[in-house]
Amino acid sequence: MSPSEVRAAVSNGIPPPAVLDLPYPDKPEVITANVLKLTELAPNPRVKLIFSNLISKLHEFVAETNITTDEWMSTIDFLTRTGQTCTPLRQEFILLSDVLGVSALVDALNNPPVANATESSVLGPFFTEDAPDVPLGGSIASEGKGEYMYVEGRVLASSGKPVPGAVIETWETDDKGYYDTQYTERPAPDCRGRLRTDEEGKFGYRAIVPVAYPIPGDGPVGELLLTLGRHNIRPNHLHVMIDAPGFRKLTTSLYPEGDAFLSSDAVFGVKRSLVVKLTEVDDEAEARKRGFQKGTKFKLLRHDFIILTVEESAAARAERIGASSA
Amino acid sequence: MSPSEVRAAVSNGIPPPAVLDLPYPDKPEVITANVLKLTELAPNPRVKLIFSNLISKLHEFVAETNITTDEWMSTIDFLTRTGQTCTPLRQEFILLSDVLGVSALVDALNNPPVANATESSVLGPFFTEDAPDVPLGGSIASEGKGEYMYVEGRVLASSGKPVPGAVIETWETDDKGYYDTQYTERPAPDCRGRLRTDEEGKFGYRAIVPVAYPIPGDGPVGELLLTLGRHNIRPNHLHVMIDAPGFRKLTTSLYPEGDAFLSSDAVFGVKRSLVVKLTEVDDEAEARKRGFQKGTKFKLLRHDFIILTVEESAAARAERIGASSA
Repeated sequence: MSPSEVRAAVSNGIPPPAVLDLPYPDKPEVITANVLKLTELAPNPRVKLIFSNLISKLHEFVAETNITTDEWMSTIDFLTRTGQTCTPLRQEFILLSDVLGVSALVDALNNPPVANATESSVLGPFFTEDAPDVPLGGSIASEGKGEYMYVEGRVLASSGKPVPGAVIETWETDDKGYYDTQYTERPAPDCRGRLRTDEEGKFGYRAIVPVAYPIPGDGPVGELLLTLGRHNIRPNHLHVMIDAPGFRKLTTSLYPEGDAFLSSDAVFGVKRSLVVKLTEVDDEAEARKRGFQKGTKFKLLRHDFIILTVEESAAARAERIGASSA
Repeated sequence: MSPSEVRAAVSNGIPPPAVLDLPYPDKPEVITANVLKLTELAPNPRVKLIFSNLISKLHEFVAETNITTDEWMSTIDFLTRTGQTCTPLRQEFILLSDVLGVSALVDALNNPPVANATESSVLGPFFTEDAPDVPLGGSIASEGKGEYMYVEGRVLASSGKPVPGAVIETWETDDKGYYDTQYTERPAPDCRGRLRTDEEGKFGYRAIVPVAYPIPGDGPVGELLLTLGRHNIRPNHLHVMIDAPGFRKLTTSLYPEGDAFLSSDAVFGVKRSLVVKLTEVDDEAEARKRGFQKGTKFKLLRHDFIILTVEESAAARAERIGASSA
């Protein structure tokens, strides 16, 4: 498109707001008031509520901290670099949301604890859509990726009834502390897999013992944690996402006990009910029976997941929102 | 880097915070409290103050609006796309800051009005570093870009003393409503230039009459304004940035009177004192004398800019901050 071929820029078709009293924004408080008045024009009430609150908080933040022009330009630069660090395999904005505790907060607000149901935990930035289908008893990790672990249990409804055919997505780091997507070369997905529970709601798969690891430190979020004087470690954990027709998708992780970083997890993901015990098994026959190729030892992680129906989950959220606004 | 060559991921060297009481974040309020406790570790007091406030406001926003998981993921996606829309010639995050009134607020807080000094206005996303040097009396616009305008005046200190050698950066849209950087092909900068005031602080240059124009509507910010039911028009204006040794850099714009979008400017940039009158001159001799090649008419914009020394500007900011925290 060269200049001579170009038609004049056209507006988005929305006229100036004739009915509003908008004085020239000569003072800080008039600027804030004008933005809020214009936000009243939002046709969708939910959008209006969200943006009115967001704009109020954002302007309070700027005014109360007396953000300087240089600080704001650094913020713009930080946000821009955060966006540009994202790739189809890396989500730096989720990581930012994680380290500021926002992901954990959104998760906690949307998934309030319900009786015996498994609690949720943060998704994190390393889930991918391309995990291979793994048969029950199969392995999500290629040989040599870490210490052997066998994960087994059942997926149950809150009634205790098994949920057959539930889809389990599970992923973890290797023993060096990296997800497969963090390697420059990634010939195939590794340390991740997709399984389905059997007729009795049971599942079992080979994996490796997860290790504590630093979240990526080579991007803007890594810089931020250094600036804040915070470590960047997530305690060892195994990600699990469970979906079944009629049920609310559960996104959670299991955290083997004993890790020094459990309570200061860089992304605030650990809940007491998700801390689990690994049992050491040292028996060659048991190892071979579960398909492990080398050595005699493995760690056994037994855990049942209790998932909520869409209705149970919605009712719990509605109750929480009612309680919080009462 | 293939997996076998990789060393284990190493932390950023900061140990877990032994002294803090950090319960497992099993509830929303504990999550917020834990993030704030960890923020107390920030070695720099300014960083601690800014992030404590930011985290509080951000968590209040999420909790008070009961942001859903889907809404938050849409927000992450929006921010990611905003970052990825940025190029060396396009800054979508500044545009976002602009339409939310944050740029205007930061500007107003950092540049409080001082007696007779020229007020500031938002920078906007279209400033570039590569404007050509234009001699006094020269043109910042190539022929055919719009209705002729001549801009002249002086740069003065608050004492009334002229400021010689002040560097003036000035930029504007063409009569189609586009900045040069918005064209796919940009053989050279156009409708922008860099001048220096003469010994008497005077400047003068040929330009074109600016027109009201929509801010870019083809990116995430354009979508946002549609969602908010807001028009995306900036009233006609000429950007001016003035820098001179010992003075605080002035970033401002002049807004010719009569535009229907002045008070609802999509980026909240218009201040009463920056609205100016253009005088029509219809005289071939006057036009030729100022170097215009065609026609007999041009618009004359006369304006003196009064800039503040670094000390005057700092004193005004300190006074405002003192007043706002008193």
